[in-house]
This record gives sequence, structure tokens and C-alpha cells, in this order.
Amino acid sequence: MSAGDIFLWELLGTAVLVMLGTGVVANNVLRRTNGNDGGVLFVNVGWGFAVFTGASLAAPSGAHLNPAITLAFAVADKTPWSDVPMYFLAQMLGGIIGAVLCWATYKLQFDDHDDPAGTLGVFSTAPTIRNPVWNLVTEALGTFVLVAFVLFSPAFKPGDADQGVLPNFGNSALGYAAVAFVVLVIGTSLGGPTGYAINPARDLGPRIAYAFVLPIKGKGRADWGYAWVPVAGPLLGGVLAALLFMAYPAA
Amino acid sequence: MSAGDIFLWELLGTAVLVMLGTGVVANNVLRRTNGNDGGVLFVNVGWGFAVFTGASLAAPSGAHLNPAITLAFAVADKTPWSDVPMYFLAQMLGGIIGAVLCWATYKLQFDDHDDPAGTLGVFSTAPTIRNPVWNLVTEALGTFVLVAFVLFSPAFKPGDADQGVLPNFGNSALGYAAVAFVVLVIGTSLGGPTGYAINPARDLGPRIAYAFVLPIKGKGRADWGYAWVPVAGPLLGGVLAALLFMAYPAA
Amino acid sequence: MSAGDIFLWELLGTAVLVMLGTGVVANNVLRRTNGNDGGVLFVNVGWGFAVFTGASLAAPSGAHLNPAITLAFAVADKTPWSDVPMYFLAQMLGGIIGAVLCWATYKLQFDDHDDPAGTLGVFSTAPTIRNPVWNLVTEALGTFVLVAFVLFSPAFKPGDADQGVLPNFGNSALGYAAVAFVVLVIGTSLGGPTGYAINPARDLGPRIAYAFVLPIKGKGRADWGYAWVPVAGPLLGGVLAALLFMAYPAA
Amino acid sequence: MSAGDIFLWELLGTAVLVMLGTGVVANNVLRRTNGNDGGVLFVNVGWGFAVFTGASLAAPSGAHLNPAITLAFAVADKTPWSDVPMYFLAQMLGGIIGAVLCWATYKLQFDDHDDPAGTLGVFSTAPTIRNPVWNLVTEALGTFVLVAFVLFSPAFKPGDADQGVLPNFGNSALGYAAVAFVVLVIGTSLGGPTGYAINPARDLGPRIAYAFVLPIKGKGRADWGYAWVPVAGPLLGGVLAALLFMAYPAA
Repeated sequence: MSAGDIFLWELLGTAVLVMLGTGVVANNVLRRTNGNDGGVLFVNVGWGFAVFTGASLAAPSGAHLNPAITLAFAVADKTPWSDVPMYFLAQMLGGIIGAVLCWATYKLQFDDHDDPAGTLGVFSTAPTIRNPVWNLVTEALGTFVLVAFVLFSPAFKPGDADQGVLPNFGNSALGYAAVAFVVLVIGTSLGGPTGYAINPARDLGPRIAYAFVLPIKGKGRADWGYAWVPVAGPLLGGVLAALLFMAYPAA
Repeated sequence: MSAGDIFLWELLGTAVLVMLGTGVVANNVLRRTNGNDGGVLFVNVGWGFAVFTGASLAAPSGAHLNPAITLAFAVADKTPWSDVPMYFLAQMLGGIIGAVLCWATYKLQFDDHDDPAGTLGVFSTAPTIRNPVWNLVTEALGTFVLVAFVLFSPAFKPGDADQGVLPNFGNSALGYAAVAFVVLVIGTSLGGPTGYAINPARDLGPRIAYAFVLPIKGKGRADWGYAWVPVAGPLLGGVLAALLFMAYPAA
Repeated sequence: MSAGDIFLWELLGTAVLVMLGTGVVANNVLRRTNGNDGGVLFVNVGWGFAVFTGASLAAPSGAHLNPAITLAFAVADKTPWSDVPMYFLAQMLGGIIGAVLCWATYKLQFDDHDDPAGTLGVFSTAPTIRNPVWNLVTEALGTFVLVAFVLFSPAFKPGDADQGVLPNFGNSALGYAAVAFVVLVIGTSLGGPTGYAINPARDLGPRIAYAFVLPIKGKGRADWGYAWVPVAGPLLGGVLAALLFMAYPAA
Repeated sequence: MSAGDIFLWELLGTAVLVMLGTGVVANNVLRRTNGNDGGVLFVNVGWGFAVFTGASLAAPSGAHLNPAITLAFAVADKTPWSDVPMYFLAQMLGGIIGAVLCWATYKLQFDDHDDPAGTLGVFSTAPTIRNPVWNLVTEALGTFVLVAFVLFSPAFKPGDADQGVLPNFGNSALGYAAVAFVVLVIGTSLGGPTGYAINPARDLGPRIAYAFVLPIKGKGRADWGYAWVPVAGPLLGGVLAALLFMAYPAA
């Protein structure tokens, strides 16, 4: 695949993923929205189908949208190492742009919010109880499930219609819906302690946007002390899943 | 396609879409319903599958059901410009009829409601914070996501079974379910500020019905000053998505 | 199809449909359950996938599970009139058995419930505002949407893989999932006034079970004065959808 | 299939199923989580897609993940009796490991929880009203629905593309999504009285982990007096479904 295609589709897909994902948090958190206090299932459903929508737009580049998936695919020999930097760049830029688009959508609500210093939570994750080691474990376990699913699931394997098995639909809406279900359940089940970043671009991109780009009045700090956890945890979990896949490829 | 077929199926599909979509708001808002105060996810789920149901009925005409989609398809050379007026006409009439059917479903509840002047919200959208420019941005962004999904997603592209990819299921229940998921997430994620009209026929049709057709006792004003925003915003967002698709057709 | 097959599969499917559907209401209404006060979306989701499960079990008989669908199929020349009595009989018996199985599931909770006279609502529908004509309109409109979907949707039409359209999956899990989505949205959107029976067997069968079979202590009346509405309304709506289909078969 | 393959994939799949399933309860119950008090639909959705995710990972071994399914498949001549012990062993070990992974995810929240003696409910089920006979009936009925679905549904039967029916997708993401919907509705509809174990490994494995493995401070008893019900009930319900299938194979 050309570097330009990787850049274009990963950037578009990640931007839409992050716009929709941070959007549901904005809708839930900011006052004077229709979704204020919509609840945790509301937020989990939003994130799940945010991934569905972003991935569907990024089909031409394989719809990674997540450095943890790109790294795992490189480890598992599914993506050339030489493509990795362009994937990472496009995903990070997409995360920043998605955060800006979320802000543009909710601009009036940000202006009116009575706790602007607390608006980082719209964009980036934070642990409910701070402890780098266990927060890292939680993020790594969540990402392990996501990446293991993409590597092992029959949703992403070639089938054989003659043997009564559906052909590969990895690059179709069905495969992306399957991933959306997995992101949904990671949210409901493993998202309690850290808010399930499970994607460095989804967390670091919007954090950069919050710190350096967005003109939110009275905004607070970007919590850089925690920023490495939702980067390192997902990368670690993704690599563990890739190593398992290398050992047992579900032949 | 014949003008008669466009008219029939777009009218039927839009009427059912709007009946079900405005119906879930009626269920949520009116007192003495089973769904009173059902919450924002309840409303978002209802609208998502309202689109699924309406689109499934309108498969013969391509299931546009939305002037923003028809205009984008015309810009992207997927629908002849000569068919556009008939699509628009059927969609607007369908929107009006759907609002009437919603009223018929909830006739007893409308009669009993203690705030009849506030019932416009059942039928048409309103911003939580009024500002034409930013409300327009919000509506344009939401519709951009919807139309970009329909144009770019593999759910609506021809596949090749020999290469392990499912054949095109754009005109099947699967394609419509995919759109329902996208409408659901636009609601959860971008619907906070303006109620995500993202469809001129869905907003203007019911507004006309409310203002001129429905015999609701003590009803309030139709808020014509805002009515242009959920028309112009969706058309703008749809055209932007079509222009992106013309530039990068995801070949 | 043999009369024995119709009887067996329609009875099994309707019994499971009604057990699961009335079960979610029991879970929501009875005290000392895990789902007490679970809310309207909880109930709507339960009913939607109750239909999915029951229909999947009844695939050999076409999974009608609803006299309104059987009657509409007979009017539309899709089911022989001579099979109709056996469908009706099995559906009604299935509805009664399903109610008994729901009671067996929640036997301890029924014994413990502090308002046994109000337990009819677990089994059969009641209007929030009583008015036979408008209650009938609501039930007819809801059933019209259900039956029109089954008759018109591409989910239930033969496709052509060569033309890039999925083959018919009407008798597959996909077709039943599509119906589940429609039942879900009928619940969210049209269920507010009457509780969306949209199926005479689903309402009358459990009502018979409640009145004559179930040993609930201190139970109340079966509200026979209303019982004809959730029978006549669905049959009327189903026939209207069949007539529309006869006039415009979406060729 | 080799004994090693059964062991590996059943263990992996059951561990992920149980980690995600007990995880959503932890998120709902423990304080200082993002999902605290998320509600019953939140928990039911989590369990449904926990099954989807675990089953997708365990496709190579047929994705039983449940002794009740393995036993029913053996009774129905779909799994050799000689494979049954290895399935049971892997499922039980997977259940224990899944509980440990849930604990690791929520370690900080368990340390902080103000009612550590009540944390058994995160891992294993308990009846809301204790009565061995009726609790057994409830668990048997729920499991009957699950196993009957797997045995009878067209989602798990070979199809014939030439006749317009989708080929078998039992071992694909579609089949697992179908099961997820059924687990979801069993939760909403039959889970009220006993918490729907419907799987001995899902209940006994985590109970063993709670009693003997997990270092939760101040934890309570493992309620061994009830532990046989969520083992015997599911096995009974599964065998009943298998016997029905043997009598009426939906030929």
C-alpha cells in the first residue's frame, strides 16, 4: 500500500473514531446537552460504534486506527515494519483532529460549562484510583482482548464457501461490527478502573489537542504524569496478543 | 427508476422512519406512556432502528429517505439530477405523513399532556444553546459522518466472493443495519447540542405537520426562525462528504 | 408442510418467545429480582431478542409465531388458507405454555410479590389511557410496521449473488435478527400507549394462562373487556400491510 | 480434534468469557469504578458480548466454553464422549483463570471496596430468594433455551447457497453474535431469580478462585451450600434440550 493511502485513510478513520468517541463523553459530561448524565452504557455504546464508523471509513488502509494494533500486526508479520511510522503518524494526527472536531461540535457547551478545568476527561482517560502498575495492567489486559480478537477471530480469517463457512469479511461492515461489539464489552467489563484507552492515539492525540490546540476557556491541566500509561499499556497488551498468535496461530 | 417508484418507496420509507423516530421521542416526553423518561440511549436506539426499518421498506428506490443523501448522491454522480426533485418531494411528504402517524399513535397522550405548548420537540429538533453558526456546524458535521459512511463504507461497495470478500450488501438488511449503527452513534456522540436532525425531511416535514396539520390542543409555535438550520446544515455536510468522495473514491 | 411440523415448531417457538418476553416484564416488575425497575429500554431489548430466539427455533415452520403474520401471509398468498387453523392453534397453545414457563421461572418472586392483584401486566398488555378506538389504531399501526417489514424487506427476499446481492437469508439467524431490530423499535417508538401486543397469541395466550391456569395467590382480574383490542388491532394492521404488498409487491 | 487443541482454545475462550463477564459485574458493583451502578441492562449487555468475544477466540475447538453445551453435544452425538473430560477440565481451569484476570483488572477497586465480604457476587451467582428446587428450575430453563438455540437455530446449520440460503456460519462471528443475543435475552428475561449462571464453569470456576486463590482482603464465604445448583441446573437443562433435539432434529 502506498504511504499516501495509509496516511489518508488512517487519518480520516481515526479522526472520525475520536470525534465520535470523545463526543459521547462530551454529551454525557457537559451540561446543556441532550445526553447529559446519559450513563455508562450510553458511553460504552457510543465508543463501540465510533470504532465501527471510523473503521468502515478506513477500510482501504486496513482500518488499524490504533498504534497497538499496528505494532501487533508488525510483530505478527502482517504489516511491514517500514509502514509502521506512517500508520503511527496518521493515527496521532487523526486523534488530534478528531478532538478538534469534537470541540467544534460542542463549542457552545464548552463555553457554557461550569467546570472547564475538569474537561480533560472529555478527551483523555484518567484512572479512578491512581497506581501506575495496576493501571498499566488494566490497560494491557483490555488491549490484549481487542488485539487477540482481531488476530484470532474467524471474523478476520479467510473462509471457504464450499465447506459451508462464510468467506472472509474482515474488511467489510460485518468485521467492523464484530470489533465494535468487542470494544463495547471491553468498555462495560474492563473499563471501570482506567476508562479503557486501549489505543495510544485515542488518548495521547486528544491530550495534545487539549493541552496545545483547543481554545477552551479556563481549562485545566493535561495530566502529563499519567499520559504514558494509556500509551505503554496498550502497546504492551497488543504485543502480548501478537506473541500468543505467533505461538498458536489457530491453524 | 421510474418517478412513480421513487415517489412510492421514498414516501413509504420516510413516513415509517419519521413515525418511528418521532414516536420514540413522544414515548420519552409525553406523560402517561410506558416509555416516559426512558432516557437518551432509549431515544438514540429508537432513532437508529427507525432508520433501519424505513430503509428496509424503501429498498426499491435506494432508500435515500433524506434530501442530504439524495443531494450528495447527485453531486457524486450516483443519482441523476433529474430524479432529485421527485426524491425531495416524496421525502418531504413522507416526513409530514410520518408525523401524522406518530400523532395518531399517541393521540390520547397528546390530549392528556400537561404542556401541549412544548410538544414541538416531539416532532422537530431545537438547539440546547441557540447560535445559528455553531448549530449549523454541528448539523453539518453529523451529516458529514452519515453521508461519508454511505459513500465510503464497504457495506455499500461491490465485493468479490472469489477473493474472500462478501458481495455487495448495500441494498440488504445488512447494509441498513450498518446505517442504523451509524445513526445511533451520531445520536450518542454528536446529538448533544442540536438533537441531530441530519435530515431536512425528518425535521422540516414534521415541523410543517405540527404547524399546519396536527390538531393538538394548546400547541405552541413551530420555531420557524430555527427551521433553516436543520435544512442547510445537513445539505452542507452531505455535499462536503460527496466532494471528499469525488476527490478520494477509495478506489 | 405437514400439520404436525407446523404444530410442533410454532408451539415451541411461540412458547419460548412468550416465556422470554413475559419474563423480562416479570424481571422488571416483580420485587426481589435482579432486574427490578430495569427500565423501558431493558424491557424493549428483552422483547426484541425474545422474538429472535423464538423465531430461530421455529425456522422449520417459517417462524410466524403470530396470528397477524399468518393471516397476512394467507391474504398475500404466501401461506395456504388450509394451514391457517393449525398455525393459530399452535401459536395460542404456545402462548399459554410460554406464560406458564415464565411463571415457573419466577415462581418464588410471584409468591413474594406485594401486589399480586397487579400481576396481569407481566403477562398481557393494557393501555395507559383506555379508549378502544385509539388503542386499536395504535396496535394496528405497530403491527402494520412489523408485517410490512417482513413482506417488503430485502432480508426476506431471494437475492442473486452474481449481482452482488446476498442470497435470501429470511430463514436464517440474520433474517430473525432483522425482525428483532424491528420489534425493538416498535417497542421504543409505538409501544408507549398500549404496550405493543402486536401479536394476538402473545397477549391472549398469556391472558388465558393468567385467568385459568396459573396458581398465583391473590391474583387480580384478567381484564377481558380490553382483551379483544390486542387481538383485533394486530389482525387489522397485518391485513392492511398484506393489501399494500398485494398492490405494490416491490417487484 | 487433538486433546491439546481442545485444552488450549477452551481454556483461552472460557478465561476471556469469564474475565469479561465477571468484569462487568465488578464494574457495576465495586465503588470507585466508571460503571458503578450501571444497571441491569449494562450487566446483561456485558455478559452477552463476553460470550461473543470468548467464543470467537475459541473457534478452533468449537467454542463450547460451557460444560452444559459439551454434555448436550455428547448426548446428541455431536461431540465424542472421549473428548468430554478434556473439555470440562479446560473450561473449569479457564473459569478460574478468568476470575483471576478480573481480579487483576479491578485489584485497586477490590482493595478499596467498603464491603469486601460481599464480593462473592462479582464472581458467582446467588439466588435472590433461596429455594433449591425452584432455583434449579430457573437455571435449567435458562440453559434449555441456550442449548436448544445452538442445536436448532439455522445459525448453526449447513445451508445451501444455491437455494438462496446462507451457508453455515456456525463457526463465524455471525454465529457467535447470534449466541450473544440469546445470552443477552436469557439475562434480561430469565436472569431475575438466580443471576443466570447457565454454565457450570462460569459459576464454579470463579467460586473456586474466590475461595482458594484470590487475595481479596476481608472477603466472605463462598456459599458452598448453593454451589451445586448452578452446576446441576445447567447440566439438566442442556440434556433436556439435547433429548428434544434427538427426538425432533428439525430435519
